[in-house]
Amino acid sequence: MARALNQLREQMAEVADLQAASALLDWDHQTYMPPGAAEARAQQMATIDRLAHQQLTSDSIGELLQTAQSEVEGLDLDSNEARLVKVTQRDFDRERRIPSRWVSEFSQATALAHQIWQEARGTSDFSKFEPSLERIVGLRQEYASFFEPYESIYDPLFEAFEPGMKTAQIRAVFAELRPALVDLVQRIAERADRVDDSFLHGKFEDAPQWEFGLEVLQRMGYDFQRGRQDRSAHPFTTSFSNDDVRITTRVEGELLTSALFSSIHEGGHALYEQGVDPQLQRSPLAGGASLSLHESQSRLWENLVGRSRPFWRFFFPELKERFGQLRNVSLEDFYRAVNRVRPSLIRVDADEVTYNLHIMVRFELEQELLEGRVRVKDLPPAWNQKMNEYLGIVPPNDAQGILQDVHWSGGAIGYFPTYTLGNLISVEFYQSALRDCPQIWAEMEQGRFDSLLDWLRQHVHIFGRKFEPLELLRRATGQELSPQPYLSYLHEKFTEIYQL
Amino acid sequence: MARALNQLREQMAEVADLQAASALLDWDHQTYMPPGAAEARAQQMATIDRLAHQQLTSDSIGELLQTAQSEVEGLDLDSNEARLVKVTQRDFDRERRIPSRWVSEFSQATALAHQIWQEARGTSDFSKFEPSLERIVGLRQEYASFFEPYESIYDPLFEAFEPGMKTAQIRAVFAELRPALVDLVQRIAERADRVDDSFLHGKFEDAPQWEFGLEVLQRMGYDFQRGRQDRSAHPFTTSFSNDDVRITTRVEGELLTSALFSSIHEGGHALYEQGVDPQLQRSPLAGGASLSLHESQSRLWENLVGRSRPFWRFFFPELKERFGQLRNVSLEDFYRAVNRVRPSLIRVDADEVTYNLHIMVRFELEQELLEGRVRVKDLPPAWNQKMNEYLGIVPPNDAQGILQDVHWSGGAIGYFPTYTLGNLISVEFYQSALRDCPQIWAEMEQGRFDSLLDWLRQHVHIFGRKFEPLELLRRATGQELSPQPYLSYLHEKFTEIYQL
Repeated sequence: MARALNQLREQMAEVADLQAASALLDWDHQTYMPPGAAEARAQQMATIDRLAHQQLTSDSIGELLQTAQSEVEGLDLDSNEARLVKVTQRDFDRERRIPSRWVSEFSQATALAHQIWQEARGTSDFSKFEPSLERIVGLRQEYASFFEPYESIYDPLFEAFEPGMKTAQIRAVFAELRPALVDLVQRIAERADRVDDSFLHGKFEDAPQWEFGLEVLQRMGYDFQRGRQDRSAHPFTTSFSNDDVRITTRVEGELLTSALFSSIHEGGHALYEQGVDPQLQRSPLAGGASLSLHESQSRLWENLVGRSRPFWRFFFPELKERFGQLRNVSLEDFYRAVNRVRPSLIRVDADEVTYNLHIMVRFELEQELLEGRVRVKDLPPAWNQKMNEYLGIVPPNDAQGILQDVHWSGGAIGYFPTYTLGNLISVEFYQSALRDCPQIWAEMEQGRFDSLLDWLRQHVHIFGRKFEPLELLRRATGQELSPQPYLSYLHEKFTEIYQL
Repeated sequence: MARALNQLREQMAEVADLQAASALLDWDHQTYMPPGAAEARAQQMATIDRLAHQQLTSDSIGELLQTAQSEVEGLDLDSNEARLVKVTQRDFDRERRIPSRWVSEFSQATALAHQIWQEARGTSDFSKFEPSLERIVGLRQEYASFFEPYESIYDPLFEAFEPGMKTAQIRAVFAELRPALVDLVQRIAERADRVDDSFLHGKFEDAPQWEFGLEVLQRMGYDFQRGRQDRSAHPFTTSFSNDDVRITTRVEGELLTSALFSSIHEGGHALYEQGVDPQLQRSPLAGGASLSLHESQSRLWENLVGRSRPFWRFFFPELKERFGQLRNVSLEDFYRAVNRVRPSLIRVDADEVTYNLHIMVRFELEQELLEGRVRVKDLPPAWNQKMNEYLGIVPPNDAQGILQDVHWSGGAIGYFPTYTLGNLISVEFYQSALRDCPQIWAEMEQGRFDSLLDWLRQHVHIFGRKFEPLELLRRATGQELSPQPYLSYLHEKFTEIYQL
């Protein structure tokens, strides 16, 4: 009995091993790889990715899936077995449309583009990155073509990140967010003088920032026996199994909290991956349910926890000990400073209110790129124009503009909206957790996160990829996706901070 | 024309990519991997190694080889094309005898054993490591059985490291070396008071050791754009392409020169891999010709260069600047100290004269293990007895005895004799290089190694795996493998140092 299911499991475990090897090649690429190795590495990644794709889409998997379908009939639809077949079928159906040749070309192109992007950003020279991006956009358009007919060319890309969701849903979310956010930003701008964050800017040493970040991660519950933090040009989280989930950060030293919030953000991703049911390992059910679910975790820890009063009640004295510059700063001033709202150039350092406007800029440009309404070479002025339109500022150079994010160099077009969805979902999760465990804030004031992490593990992490993102949201909170809880949270928080 | 050859090349390039991914999984395992990941990593390595083996031994490779044979007929037998077919055929014939099932079991067993060995060594508890070693010896005996009939069970293991060589050749070498070395050790022992190395022992800081090692590597010609040095429990060199050749060392701080000589040793390996003709990359001709050839490079740099007067004429003043403890030590005293001969416990720190006795202990035990004449559980007393017999000392514990080397935990049984062969070959190479380029020593006194490295590149490195080891030795030096040049070198050097 269940012979096909077991064979399916074994074959998919090998796919998982190949994917883990590919993830390690990429982690190494972004952390320790010597620069001369870029071409060889791109070939290695292309080969491994193609092999993983070939195995996943082989006829033998197709046949096993058919037999396994009948083997799981009658089982609880939410059982690991039934869900394994369902999710593998979904992945199989999607990946079968993509030729392995495309996978290998895409893998090689993006591995090469990463280094070029880094150089282009370093010299703020978009023209260096242009041919790589041209190639990637072309490959992504080709990718979309494998899924024709579609409602929007953005759909196939987005759905690969967000199973079961459509571009129209993001558009609806932004339509509701945009006026509310623009209004809030304006009202805050009139009271800008109420918050001062000058003491966060200056020269800050590397080592104490690094150590403070490690301490916060430890207290959050990140397990260093099954993970580690390194440095990279752009912070990221990667996972080679739920026993090896790694994060990176960058320490720049001009903004005191930049490395820290990046560590907390990636730590949120990592807690998710470390919390997946070990029984789901080496299977298509391992890992996060979707990118927006992932971002809901990272943004929850970064903002709802990391930019809250209870968090800093515990950690601010520790931070002060490390940085003499904060000697005369009060907890309240510090809390307000890390929540200062101001249109700015860099997405990852943006406050909670303007953050989604940065996403909107990217979401709109991505659609225009894919639809051919804007050409790659015309991106810098298009970017600057949209920044001006939504945020009222124009980047002085491309490094602080169009070149700031790693995503496109990695081929991740269609990723950005998941940050905004993640913001929305994070509030829904957090409010449910607070309802179920009112002690969360009191614990946090003592530097403990047990109840919060337990709640997230039980309601979100443990399920891995078993459920589609909105299904998981519903099961965890009883609610649908909606911008309203998020907007209420922002209004309440910033009305108080800025006395609006 | 040459269609089969081109297809062969492409398919073997994918095998090379898989092998590179496996090597990265292993490098990471030994450097940065969090401890909790050991089991998942073992599975990943098993899968990748099995896939590489399956691809290499597929029927399709067999068929391509047959056609390619005829395509290269008439070509120069030493051309890259003809040699590619020849070497791939050799690898194919060997690997076809090994079931992929064995490859995956071996890979998993050794990946798990590494961590267990490390713990066992940490607590000096052989019983912890015993079951792992039992398993590995069993797998190695099974490996040998795939090559029956054989003259010695050691042959198939040894030949995988040394194409074209037999155990009988090592025995003959040791039969010649043993009496000469034992005699030399005894004569030196009578004059032990002529060399003092007490100033090399003490407490030495980590950072200046690390930096000094990097400086020496840089001057040797190691290209940090295509490599890097990290830390690991046991130093090693690994290569993911000739554009990414990495070394590791350990800094322990009780013996001033331990980390340094380990860096120079691994640097010698790395120069070899970095110097292989780029045209051979991603092919079975990439990498070193054999382990003894590899050790000839590492031992040449470590001993013939790194323990020579011209080397220290340049570097000793630099070392003195970094370590105040050497203030009153003369260059001559330092030279003699790093060449002090004394039976000791740890192979990697052993002097040039006693070193091969350490190898003999291991070589004999390995044969007895494989032949079933000694059981794994009886290894510690057997080890101690042989140490007493050949070196006149007995380890106080297993960490400094049977557990000191990483090799067996990685399944590398049959590896140790290649160190001794490497010693022999290193002298033959070095003397040829000095004959061709008499300026080598003068350059070295200025911290330059150009002529030596050029000679090695042109006569050894560039050829990769094109030639069998003894064939390469003959081409480079016009000589056969012989212990005599090595023994003469030792006699001359140590007669002078100890005024024998």
